[in-house]
Amino acid sequence: MPTLLRLDSSASGRASVSRELTGVFAGAWRGEIVERDLHASPLPHLPDSALHYAPRLRTEDEKPDARAEQLQEQLIAELLAADAVVIGAPMYNWSIPSTLKAWLDYVHVLGTTVPFDTKDQPLAGKPVIVLSSRGLEYGPGTPDEGKDHTLPPIVQTLGTSMGMDVTTVVADLTLAERLPPLAAMADKARESLAAAREQARELAGKLSGDK
Amino acid sequence: MPTLLRLDSSASGRASVSRELTGVFAGAWRGEIVERDLHASPLPHLPDSALHYAPRLRTEDEKPDARAEQLQEQLIAELLAADAVVIGAPMYNWSIPSTLKAWLDYVHVLGTTVPFDTKDQPLAGKPVIVLSSRGLEYGPGTPDEGKDHTLPPIVQTLGTSMGMDVTTVVADLTLAERLPPLAAMADKARESLAAAREQARELAGKLSGDK
Repeated sequence: MPTLLRLDSSASGRASVSRELTGVFAGAWRGEIVERDLHASPLPHLPDSALHYAPRLRTEDEKPDARAEQLQEQLIAELLAADAVVIGAPMYNWSIPSTLKAWLDYVHVLGTTVPFDTKDQPLAGKPVIVLSSRGLEYGPGTPDEGKDHTLPPIVQTLGTSMGMDVTTVVADLTLAERLPPLAAMADKARESLAAAREQARELAGKLSGDK
Repeated sequence: MPTLLRLDSSASGRASVSRELTGVFAGAWRGEIVERDLHASPLPHLPDSALHYAPRLRTEDEKPDARAEQLQEQLIAELLAADAVVIGAPMYNWSIPSTLKAWLDYVHVLGTTVPFDTKDQPLAGKPVIVLSSRGLEYGPGTPDEGKDHTLPPIVQTLGTSMGMDVTTVVADLTLAERLPPLAAMADKARESLAAAREQARELAGKLSGDK
């Protein structure tokens, strides 16, 4: 039975679209699920930039706190143990929620999860599905194209740098029902969410069924 | 005497380039300085997405914790009281340190600091200098152009959305002295840092001398 690591980071409760999508994904997953809610049980901000490096690559001055190192090891072990990862990643102010950014900063480690003096990339090929909710729309041809700074650094960190196999799914215009000037976009928002739900369901089935 | 709000967010100690730059800026500032070190005294991650909205714009379900609201009010008051703001913003994993992202998420509030049902933009025109350090180089024509997702969302949030007058200064290639493959770039890195120091000094003089 394949194991899924489910990460949520939304600061919204029941109204969270990204949490709804990770829920759909988890519901369609055939296997074990390990849940880590980065909002409900937040990680401390990375306490020391030495943690960007494997111990052997640190300078003499760099002596991070042992508990922070243990937390980092635990987070990386959790990632290594999963067969696939699903991440709920809402856009907050054009970027990543601080809770999710803290997690990224713990797990991206030169010489440990990222090649440096060796070619090791222990997470290479592991599937990651990023389910992102965005208040407006940022796709090709839209006025705000290029202003999403949420997904690109996640894809760069987990995909390009750590070698994981990242797929992104977006639900756009989540503010359409909340902000009166966007009311005319409500139908489009519902279509975007329905499509994202369908993609999440299909991906979960495919990734857990092939094992 | 003009008041400067100095924000740091680097997780490095003495080796921090962004902290060195905010130090140069503060050293050239003629006036009062209020310091907030977002790393040494980190803010909690934004506990509730309701804090993205002014109280009058929240839904009935949205009842954020009173202490979180007070902290938000305090951070906005601190920003309102400053004549200028300097922000040390290192790039971590192609994006914003989680400590600085948490601060941005507290101060960007629809209906309070961002126009919504009124045209109010109480911080409009306030100068903000963002001093950013980046391990590689991301300027026009470089291979990694467009991969900096640190500065764009800061400029979008504080500048475009909140109306502040944002100037960015970068020190590139800060990893040149640390990563052997980049050793050939060390001279270029030193030039970039020297230029950034000079810009920081000039901007501080200009902004505090004109008052």
